[in-house]
Amino acid sequence: MKDVAARAGVGLKTVSRVVNGEPGVTAETEHRVREAITALGFRRNDSARVLRKGRTASIGLVLEDLADPFYAPLSRAVEEVARDHGALLLNGSSAEDPARERELVLALCARRVDGLVVVPAGGDHRYLEPETAAGLATVFVDRPGGLIAADAVLSDNFGGARDGVAHLVAHGHRRIGFLGDQPRIHTATERLRGYRAAMAAAGLPVDASWVSLGPTAPDRVRAETERMLTGPSPVTALFTGNNRVTATAVRVLARHPRPVALVGFDDLELADLLTPAVTVVAQDASRLGRTAAELLFRRLDGDAGPPRHEELPTRLIARGSGELPPADGTSG
Amino acid sequence: MKDVAARAGVGLKTVSRVVNGEPGVTAETEHRVREAITALGFRRNDSARVLRKGRTASIGLVLEDLADPFYAPLSRAVEEVARDHGALLLNGSSAEDPARERELVLALCARRVDGLVVVPAGGDHRYLEPETAAGLATVFVDRPGGLIAADAVLSDNFGGARDGVAHLVAHGHRRIGFLGDQPRIHTATERLRGYRAAMAAAGLPVDASWVSLGPTAPDRVRAETERMLTGPSPVTALFTGNNRVTATAVRVLARHPRPVALVGFDDLELADLLTPAVTVVAQDASRLGRTAAELLFRRLDGDAGPPRHEELPTRLIARGSGELPPADGTSG
Repeated sequence: MKDVAARAGVGLKTVSRVVNGEPGVTAETEHRVREAITALGFRRNDSARVLRKGRTASIGLVLEDLADPFYAPLSRAVEEVARDHGALLLNGSSAEDPARERELVLALCARRVDGLVVVPAGGDHRYLEPETAAGLATVFVDRPGGLIAADAVLSDNFGGARDGVAHLVAHGHRRIGFLGDQPRIHTATERLRGYRAAMAAAGLPVDASWVSLGPTAPDRVRAETERMLTGPSPVTALFTGNNRVTATAVRVLARHPRPVALVGFDDLELADLLTPAVTVVAQDASRLGRTAAELLFRRLDGDAGPPRHEELPTRLIARGSGELPPADGTSG
Repeated sequence: MKDVAARAGVGLKTVSRVVNGEPGVTAETEHRVREAITALGFRRNDSARVLRKGRTASIGLVLEDLADPFYAPLSRAVEEVARDHGALLLNGSSAEDPARERELVLALCARRVDGLVVVPAGGDHRYLEPETAAGLATVFVDRPGGLIAADAVLSDNFGGARDGVAHLVAHGHRRIGFLGDQPRIHTATERLRGYRAAMAAAGLPVDASWVSLGPTAPDRVRAETERMLTGPSPVTALFTGNNRVTATAVRVLARHPRPVALVGFDDLELADLLTPAVTVVAQDASRLGRTAAELLFRRLDGDAGPPRHEELPTRLIARGSGELPPADGTSG
């Protein structure tokens, strides 16, 4: 702000008036101040953010999918923290499209949000660097940002999946299927890594036909589940990599002639009331959102420390489906 | 735009340059154009909306609760329509607080959204009149706006609840409880009205102890469900007024010693896999969102007809819980 005043040859108060749209500045002076701001590399939103006054603060939340129930408690938690700080929350969804994510992030920046919590769809966030350099605070949540040094709050996806699969192994399973989301999604590959680690720790081989990553559309998950249950080397247990996959797998298993054990990553509403009730590795979605938003507000309050990565524990909730023994006597 | 050009004594192209921040306009001319815009009653966001160029269009969605799964498919449908129109969606939630709703709506207006889809929390939307007069398009969805002539897209809440309760009556129930949301919420009172109409049509009295409206917090719903099941005149069936209430009632009924029939308003994920599977009156949340967003874009494209009210049908899905007979022989 001092640099702007010096370059425009005016006082600080005049700069403040121009930026806040207050009266008492001639058109010529306003023009000079705006030119100085432009010359010094501020964008309109950045200068407004740094110098703002008399407007409601706001933060943005970029989700992956508005229709995924996992994000509902996460969103609400971010909103509650924002409210505690007197800020409004604006959010939007990338629909798992990196170009859409970038467009949405920049649109929120242009609308002068003070900071962003982002569930990234893409793997390259260098496009954020000019915004970050100009003062934008960003915290990634659920998945880390890519090619950028930034805060991130994640669940222990690897450890949670490893423990869930080890739970199936402990109940006698040797042929365990893994059904997950698309391989370019960080959480999907971390959970697959956890599955492989648990199988390796138990000395169990993994047949290529037991692993399937891809879109979570019900048709694909249904076909892949049925394939794993009926192939030449059918599985006796399934580990499902997220709530969308679990919901479809549960429907297939409900109609399957022999019992198949199931552990799902993510909890589902009513999962405890099914027969059998569904054993899950639960994330604390609300705590993910709260932790990310609190970190964001610490950054906005001036915390300029190095990027932080926080990892939250998951919790195995045994309810019945994950404790079923192998149905075909292959236990051992 | 013509009026602005005439009043400022400049050409249309100059007005366009000023509004879009393009170069080639002297500071004096810019000042004169801005004064003309102000004098003609445009606000900065409105002029930008009407005259905008070279930026991404956006619409806002104001929800009641980010964590309610009912709004997930509605949000996604609004976003898909926005995307088909090349527009971004920004949304936020009022947390059922009218003051918060107003603050969020005005914050979105200040951030230059082209139109709004609103699930209203409050009952007085006169605060929108200056925005509407200046060209903001608004469509209410799920609940109507209050004290304002505006577009609304709603479900047939009255008819859906009436049919659901009539379904319980047809299966022999005479003592039917109604558990709903807070009475200041339009959908809650419409559904209660449907309950009363079905009871009256069957010539059945309604005991005051069978009706309970209030917050959908699990503790309250649990206590009220247990009270209705154990009082001096216990109910043999329940009609639950929305998905939050149904999820809690299902948990209470799962532990109750005698079977109690249940029909819930709103479908729930996995409801078809419970024992008994839950009979529901399903809204088409996706179609609500799509219809509202399409109406909004027709308004933005120039449709200036009188306010429209669209009512979408609901669908009774019989799955088992709503077809249970009365457990205590009071059928008749």
